[in-house]
Parts: sequence; structure tokens; C-alpha cells
Amino acid sequence: MPRIAYVNGRYFPHRRAAVHIEDRGYQFADGVYEVVGVHKGRLIDEKEHLDRLERSLAELSIPKPMARGGIRIVLAQIVRRNLISDGLIYMQVTRGVAPRNHAFPTNSKPSFVVTARPIKPFDREAILKGGKVITAPDIRWKRCDIKTISLLPNAILKQKAVEAGALETWMVDEEGFITEGTSSNAWIVTKRGEVVTRRTGPEILAGITRLKVLAIAEKQGLSFVERAFSKEDVLDAEEAFLTSTTSFVKPILQIDGQTIGSGTPGKLTVALLDWYERHMEGDE
Amino acid sequence: MPRIAYVNGRYFPHRRAAVHIEDRGYQFADGVYEVVGVHKGRLIDEKEHLDRLERSLAELSIPKPMARGGIRIVLAQIVRRNLISDGLIYMQVTRGVAPRNHAFPTNSKPSFVVTARPIKPFDREAILKGGKVITAPDIRWKRCDIKTISLLPNAILKQKAVEAGALETWMVDEEGFITEGTSSNAWIVTKRGEVVTRRTGPEILAGITRLKVLAIAEKQGLSFVERAFSKEDVLDAEEAFLTSTTSFVKPILQIDGQTIGSGTPGKLTVALLDWYERHMEGDE
Repeated sequence: MPRIAYVNGRYFPHRRAAVHIEDRGYQFADGVYEVVGVHKGRLIDEKEHLDRLERSLAELSIPKPMARGGIRIVLAQIVRRNLISDGLIYMQVTRGVAPRNHAFPTNSKPSFVVTARPIKPFDREAILKGGKVITAPDIRWKRCDIKTISLLPNAILKQKAVEAGALETWMVDEEGFITEGTSSNAWIVTKRGEVVTRRTGPEILAGITRLKVLAIAEKQGLSFVERAFSKEDVLDAEEAFLTSTTSFVKPILQIDGQTIGSGTPGKLTVALLDWYERHMEGDE
Repeated sequence: MPRIAYVNGRYFPHRRAAVHIEDRGYQFADGVYEVVGVHKGRLIDEKEHLDRLERSLAELSIPKPMARGGIRIVLAQIVRRNLISDGLIYMQVTRGVAPRNHAFPTNSKPSFVVTARPIKPFDREAILKGGKVITAPDIRWKRCDIKTISLLPNAILKQKAVEAGALETWMVDEEGFITEGTSSNAWIVTKRGEVVTRRTGPEILAGITRLKVLAIAEKQGLSFVERAFSKEDVLDAEEAFLTSTTSFVKPILQIDGQTIGSGTPGKLTVALLDWYERHMEGDE
């Protein structure tokens, strides 16, 4: 069963899926993307991902590649053609192909690429093994609220995590506060049982899983607040976790080699993961 | 005469030159580039550009796509096959194709793309018409010394310049000092006749033309210094100009709509352009 990719109006075998060398995504990182989870054949929070895609495009004055209805058809086709039951859809829109020049071309047509790959079905026990994070200065640009493909700093800092045997790097701003992970949002639960994640702004991406977990916290009557926290706050916390489309709600047990809380997955972290699983099942 | 592009070991008609959708240059801006000028069939400062390319690759732990001798052969071929007498060579190296994942792949092969296009022969009068700049906050990441393809902020700010009828945007750091242009270095000549450009560091790219103009200034016995300057310093200056591979030494006559010096190309600016032309002729 070969993988199939959508590229600018056509479906190709994955290995033959290509874009022009003067696509502005290749020469200028001039594009945006989304990753949508598929759980038991269902797209998770498709509307929220497409809302965010459209916002990212609008922030960069890139036209939509097609109307939302068209995008949804392509996503459904890609899921079907790749026989995805549990997996990830990756979609990318760039400003299109134009002779190389920094300023925006006046008549390029956006490029639109969609791929999908299977992942192992949701595995609660595997997720609850959790992992470690390291910290590093946040070296990114000043518009991290836009989900662009300009991901080189994220890749560099994720690589640092991998080399340290960690899951993720939590980036630290100039005031010493954690912004977010390179591909996830950062959370703690304080000793007083308060669920904390940084408020949205130009310094972080407004994660869809982050948004859903906040909604769950509210619905379940948990005490929660959006505010910045430092590494010291993490070490002082009862629990820590990260959220993302690919990691769901994942316990973080160490930061820079120091144990957080009991060093085991926290009670509220586990509860939030279970509630999030129900959300994916469509029960909410 | 069709344009020819080099892509990963082969020469293609430009319109058919493509890279895989999972090239990390397309998904993560995980690559670097150089633009080399060709003047009367001669590559200008090829050695310095290849030195910088190798430094950029080393900073990102991307292997060289081939030994320097091989790269030089490809550049010469691209110039020859495109019949370039006066033009620009563009070369790009990325970490290569790998299944999408932020961390560096362990076994990808770098992608190497080279294109060339003709430009009008060096036109002293056209260059000396000069132009205006605007200013805007520098929103880029903290490693602008690496010549990466992560150019989205540069493209956004160049577009602002174009919309304002200006040549370039001079970016301003948090202390109010100009860092550089989006694709050029920024210079002033003070009322005391001192030639000033910002010193190199993580905030700016070490431009090759910048380096050559500093060498010329030294050789000609001009008073010069590498230090940061503000917009107020520009308005207080006698002359201003920018340098780049594509603009050479270009007078800047206005900043944010306010006239600089006499509002005409400055004496030292013109002299530096003339010396720089001699450098391109190989007389230095």
C-alpha cells in the first residue's frame, strides 16, 4: 500500500511528490502548516485547525489555497486513500512559486501540500510513561503565534532534547519564564492544585490541544490560570505535563535532570489525559 | 535559451527543477544559502562565499553536500550552461529529505540546488540614483549570523519597504540601534567623515560586500569603525548607503521620509562604489 500525497491539485505516490525549487516555502520559509490527528478514522478538532490555518495565512497575507469545503474534501481523501484509522495529517500552504525575490510576488498562486501517515492507536500506558524535558534560551523570532514553517530554531532545540535523552526542550524567555516546547505547550500543576499554562501572545503558539485541555479543566471545575512560569516554578510544582496533537497530555517527570514532584505521573495529569481521550472519542 | 538548474547531482530545465515535499528545507527551513555575483563572466568573491557557506553548514551540523572543488565545478557549469556574463548564482543546501520530525534525521543526505540568472551589467548611474529606506523593529531570531533560508521575517519586512516605495527596511533592535537591512548591510558616513557599520555578531550577517568595503576603506586610508548606530545617527550623518551582492554600494538618501545629509549621493559613497567596481574587475 503506497503512501499518497496531495500536491497542488493532484494526488501522487509519496516518493514522487515534489515542489518547484523556487517555491517560496523552500527559499524563504514563506508558508504555514497544520498537523491534525486522526483517531479511529475521525479528524480531531478539524474546525479549530482550519480556523488556525486561516488565521496564519491572513497574518502573512497569503491567500487561501481553496475554500474550506475544498480543503476538507482533500483531507478526507488523503485519510481515505492512505487507509488511515489512527494517524496524522500534515498540511502546508506556501505563498507559491515565483522568481526569487524577498518581497511578496504579486501573482503567485499558493502551494498546497497534504500528506498523512499512520501512527499506533492511542496507548494510554505508553503515554503515561512520560518523559523528561531540558531547558534552553528561546532563540525564535517575535511572531511565534503564527504557525509558520520557519521552524529551524525549533528543530535545533528539539535536537538538543534528543541528544540529552529528553522528550522536549522547554524554551526560556529573557525574563526567565518558560514560553513553550519546540512542538508542544508546557504546563504545571502547583502544590495548591492549580493548573497553569502560559497565556497566549506573540511568544507562543495557541495550541489546539492546549485550548481543549483548558476547556476540559473549566468543565471539570478545576482551578486553572493562564500565566507564565519559570523553571523554579516547575521544580516547586506537584505535576508537569505537555500537550500537543501528537503527544496528547504527556507527564513530564524531570526538568534538566531534576525530579518534578513525586517523579511519577501526577493525578491531575492522568485525569486530564483520560478526559482528553474522551474528547477524542467525540464524547464532548 | 532555457534556464538550467542543478538539483542533487543532475541538471534540469528550470521549470522542471523540483525537490521532494519532505525536503527539510520545505518543512523546517532547515538549510542555508549563498548568492554570488557574476561580473563579466567572473565569480565575485567566490572563496569568501564558499567559506561562509561552510561556516553556516557547520553551525547547523549539516554535512557539506560535496567537497569545495565539486561545488566550484557546479557553479562554473551553471554559469556556462546558462550563458551568464553578468548575473547572480543562487545556491542552497538543506539537511535533505527525511520523514517529518523536528529532530535532525540520522541518515539524510544534504540537498544541493544551484540556479543562475542574468542581470543587467553593472550600471554606475543607475546604482547612484540610490533610494530610500524605512525602519521597523527587528523581529528575527537570535542567530542572524547564520545565512539560513529561514527568511520569512526578512520577506515580511522587505515587503513593507516595497509598499512604502523604499528600497529596503533597516531593522532596529530593542536598544534602538539599526541591525541591518533585510538583505543588505547598513552604513553611514558621519559629519567627521568616519565610515560606520555595525560590528558582526549574532544580530547581523557578516556580508561579503561589507567585508570588502571595509577592506577598501582600510586600504584607502579612510577613517572607519564598526559600531552600532541609531536612526538619529543616520539623520545626523553626512551620507548613508547599503551594501550587498546584488546592490553593490548603494546611496541611501532618505530614512522614514526624512532626508539624509544633502539628499544626494555622498562623496565617500560614490568613491567606495568606484573602488568596489575596481575590486569586481579583479584590480584588487
